[in-house]
Amino acid sequence: MTKEIKNQSFVKYVELPRPALGNNTADVERLKSALAKEIETDTIFFPTGLASDFAIKLRQWNHRVKVVLFKDSRGWRVVDLLEPDIKRPVLGIAADLGTTRIVLRLINLESRKSCAEIGFDNPQASIAPDVLARIHHSRTQEGLKELQQLVISAFNENIHLLCMACAVEPISSYGQFQSQAELQTGQELQTGQELQAGQELQTGQELQAGQELQAVQASQFEVQPKIEDIHLLTVAGNSAMTHLFLGIDPSFLIREPYIPAINVPEPLEADQLGIKINKRGMVYLFPNIGSYFGGDLISGILFADLHKKDAPCIMVDVGTNAEVVVGYRDWLIACAGAAGPALEGGISDMGMTAKPGVIDTVKIDPLTGAVEVHTIEEKPAIGICGSGMIDLAAQLFLSGMLDIRGKFVPEKCGKRYFEEDGVGSFRLIGYGHVAEAGNEHNLADIVLTQVEMNSLTSSKAAMYSILQVMVEKIAGLQFEDLEKFYVAGTFGSFINPESAISIGMLPDIQIEKFEVLGNSSLEGAAKLLMNPDLFDEIDVIRKGITYIELNVNQEFMNIFSGAKFYPHTDVSRFPSIKALC
Amino acid sequence: MTKEIKNQSFVKYVELPRPALGNNTADVERLKSALAKEIETDTIFFPTGLASDFAIKLRQWNHRVKVVLFKDSRGWRVVDLLEPDIKRPVLGIAADLGTTRIVLRLINLESRKSCAEIGFDNPQASIAPDVLARIHHSRTQEGLKELQQLVISAFNENIHLLCMACAVEPISSYGQFQSQAELQTGQELQTGQELQAGQELQTGQELQAGQELQAVQASQFEVQPKIEDIHLLTVAGNSAMTHLFLGIDPSFLIREPYIPAINVPEPLEADQLGIKINKRGMVYLFPNIGSYFGGDLISGILFADLHKKDAPCIMVDVGTNAEVVVGYRDWLIACAGAAGPALEGGISDMGMTAKPGVIDTVKIDPLTGAVEVHTIEEKPAIGICGSGMIDLAAQLFLSGMLDIRGKFVPEKCGKRYFEEDGVGSFRLIGYGHVAEAGNEHNLADIVLTQVEMNSLTSSKAAMYSILQVMVEKIAGLQFEDLEKFYVAGTFGSFINPESAISIGMLPDIQIEKFEVLGNSSLEGAAKLLMNPDLFDEIDVIRKGITYIELNVNQEFMNIFSGAKFYPHTDVSRFPSIKALC
Repeated sequence: MTKEIKNQSFVKYVELPRPALGNNTADVERLKSALAKEIETDTIFFPTGLASDFAIKLRQWNHRVKVVLFKDSRGWRVVDLLEPDIKRPVLGIAADLGTTRIVLRLINLESRKSCAEIGFDNPQASIAPDVLARIHHSRTQEGLKELQQLVISAFNENIHLLCMACAVEPISSYGQFQSQAELQTGQELQTGQELQAGQELQTGQELQAGQELQAVQASQFEVQPKIEDIHLLTVAGNSAMTHLFLGIDPSFLIREPYIPAINVPEPLEADQLGIKINKRGMVYLFPNIGSYFGGDLISGILFADLHKKDAPCIMVDVGTNAEVVVGYRDWLIACAGAAGPALEGGISDMGMTAKPGVIDTVKIDPLTGAVEVHTIEEKPAIGICGSGMIDLAAQLFLSGMLDIRGKFVPEKCGKRYFEEDGVGSFRLIGYGHVAEAGNEHNLADIVLTQVEMNSLTSSKAAMYSILQVMVEKIAGLQFEDLEKFYVAGTFGSFINPESAISIGMLPDIQIEKFEVLGNSSLEGAAKLLMNPDLFDEIDVIRKGITYIELNVNQEFMNIFSGAKFYPHTDVSRFPSIKALC
Repeated sequence: MTKEIKNQSFVKYVELPRPALGNNTADVERLKSALAKEIETDTIFFPTGLASDFAIKLRQWNHRVKVVLFKDSRGWRVVDLLEPDIKRPVLGIAADLGTTRIVLRLINLESRKSCAEIGFDNPQASIAPDVLARIHHSRTQEGLKELQQLVISAFNENIHLLCMACAVEPISSYGQFQSQAELQTGQELQTGQELQAGQELQTGQELQAGQELQAVQASQFEVQPKIEDIHLLTVAGNSAMTHLFLGIDPSFLIREPYIPAINVPEPLEADQLGIKINKRGMVYLFPNIGSYFGGDLISGILFADLHKKDAPCIMVDVGTNAEVVVGYRDWLIACAGAAGPALEGGISDMGMTAKPGVIDTVKIDPLTGAVEVHTIEEKPAIGICGSGMIDLAAQLFLSGMLDIRGKFVPEKCGKRYFEEDGVGSFRLIGYGHVAEAGNEHNLADIVLTQVEMNSLTSSKAAMYSILQVMVEKIAGLQFEDLEKFYVAGTFGSFINPESAISIGMLPDIQIEKFEVLGNSSLEGAAKLLMNPDLFDEIDVIRKGITYIELNVNQEFMNIFSGAKFYPHTDVSRFPSIKALC
């Protein structure tokens, strides 16, 4: 217990015994032995370069020192030596390195509080939207460098903005930050008067399209944070993004037999990657398990504490791929990606990315057929996202407008149904829906075609099939045996489990068992920055996972066929829906 | 035994199991586990940067790879990955980093053969001749950088020359190299025809004053060695030189309580120091024990295997300071430097540095008084070195020309004795000595004054006193108990033990027990490059040594007073000399 408390920080304050004729060990060795007591280890790596002016500083600091530490595969490592009474904050950044979106969170390593968060689109998308195409682009050294540089530059730019967002004291025109609201595209950081308060702020800097910035507890700083105050960066991404971030050729990730170049990268100097934080700062990438099971999932498991649960649980991450982990304290089984063509252009492709104006909730009155939609931030509707689609499908099915094969029932859909080139469609906005009258800004029709509906059917069937195979065939459990059902990933954050159950996408278990984790990849990376003991847990997770490549075999296809019905050919699997139908 | 053989190289050839659907671990992890079997460890540090193009190379190399390894305080570390059938040599450099002189030796890490050696004056002498003055100069950041840069640049320049010295095949005009002869000042590397053979050679490059270059086994290379072929550099120097080489402030080495900034520096990337070898190359500095007991001595102990002896031995290193280690397998006691004023301007200051033309041996016929001298390389006499001085003093004493207080006996010296300003002097060359007639090139008189003689007397007394204190007072042994008497350091290489015993500088033990180690600092550094197991031995030495600061107390001064006589006030200590007197 003592150990746990002691180790729960990467920043240590130590007082060294004074040197004397009877204690004439070297300064660095005296520091190491004082630290060794503090963190209960006798192997501490002290980079020789740090010694250059340590002797004089140590005496100026009266033999006291604040030490920033980190860990690698072989144990503790000294990152930097700071004045013991330094006013400057000691910061770290946790990163979710997504294929589509990247989120950075600034964290005070001493208080272990979040300071600010920024989200932005992965700039590699300008080269290639998906992972496959990016890997192809990285085949040449130049292409690889280009992709790496894009993401590193984006990190640097956004890290700078994160610092700017942390005002020293609450200033009225910084209301956006203080209220945790988001700065949208094109909004300028008005820094006329703030420039005096926080010297680092740049006037006129604009947020780019897709950038979202949040500052929390802006007043926690005595001085304006600078990039030099950032000593650690933890990054959780899938295997391909991790390779590209590190400038490592990812070619063989996608060629049989699907071999990553590296699974467990050692932490490296930020400088070596071109990451602009403290010149002695360290960057840690979460380890991969395999080509399709990356650090983002390890980070998610760490966040959910799946490896510590007393009874089997499941975690489902639906991002660019769908990944599933079943297990608890005693074992963990993971599968990822390759449900094959069934999932292609599948779940993650459904609808738009969640953003203001996107429909995330749909309600249809089964009696009147009246449709009610909700948009994110209640902005004028501009489209529908994945969770909205699932909601819509569930409502259509429950109100009889969709049959058990997932086909529109024209007579039930009424005026909202129309055909174009022989393809049936359902008009969600544009004609006769309840919200329309009061919402003149809905300029565009929002329509769901049978083709899109079929794609959703495939996706939901694939999802259910993966879950069934994992839980029943591989883990040998029943869905009811699961104590918790964790839904991770951006997509998961918005999903309505009841709707997902209604269409037979998620198993029909108690609603209370579902828990939305949010951006579990980011949360795991942030959790690590607050507790060095978690390095050991990551090792436990990594070594404890049995990783299975799901092949699209005949058995899977049989299961998949049944799952393409609403909710399923075997309705007994969905007792609560059976009661409603 | 197997382990020993296996580990005795920093270069390993490994074949990796082929990746397959059933063995889809990442490339780096596959390499690490293959290596782990080879070197019997499960902690291998693999720098992430090395992974960048490893996947494609590994496949080009058909899953075979030559790995350059090194060690740090926590175990093995991968330095570089090479083509398995590479024609290029894999090289290392061992360095003796002396205050006055630096020697580099190029070693083939695979064949473990020496290739070439170069010696040059420490360029820091241009700033300040001695350690104290250099430390004073390093008080400012600029001064410290300047001193570091001087030595780093000299390393780079001489490393380049070492590569040039290694001709691919024996070429007649390269006779100097092949015959191990030395290139002297101003001699040009005639590279007219060699330029075709070894592309790296530069025409017209001149050796500077004090540079000495030797190439051995010039024909061992298939291709001309380049600096990129050099992967490892091991450096043994005293504590101050080690600090300055690393750019670490050495100020507190010389202020009470004499604290080094660092004792055990971790190996670091050559790049970080500006050392121009392979860009992934590593530099290792031997650890210090204290301010006055440096890595050069640890290296010497390693070379002499003092820590493995079955019976107590002594090792004496007389360089800029005098350092003494007594001990064997069970214990090691060291003392260094501070015999205080007794040694000031002492042993190391005697005479000239050994070089061609310097008198290193003197013989005086006790009956005729005829003087015979020998010069290094039998060149015309230009002066006398320390070992020549000891020889001279011994011969003078044994022939009665010097009394037991170390004063000239004019009536015995005859015409060679003269006085100037009341100071007696002995003319060694310039009048009536036997060699003069046949050696018209001896232009200058070579004279020894009573003042110089007194200084020698102090030095020899200090040396004997240190030895007596260490062996008798501290270790509680008698000189006869010592199984071996190792004499290290440049000075030691030329000393004649019989002469040193005659004047009472070294104890009167059997001549066979004396063993000259030569440049033991360089030899230890070279030995390490040939056997990774020695890292553990260095640790054993470092941790096993009891380090004692010798203070000039009354007891020491009493011993010192007796030792100022020839050979000693207590003649019973020198039975073999007593018989001659």
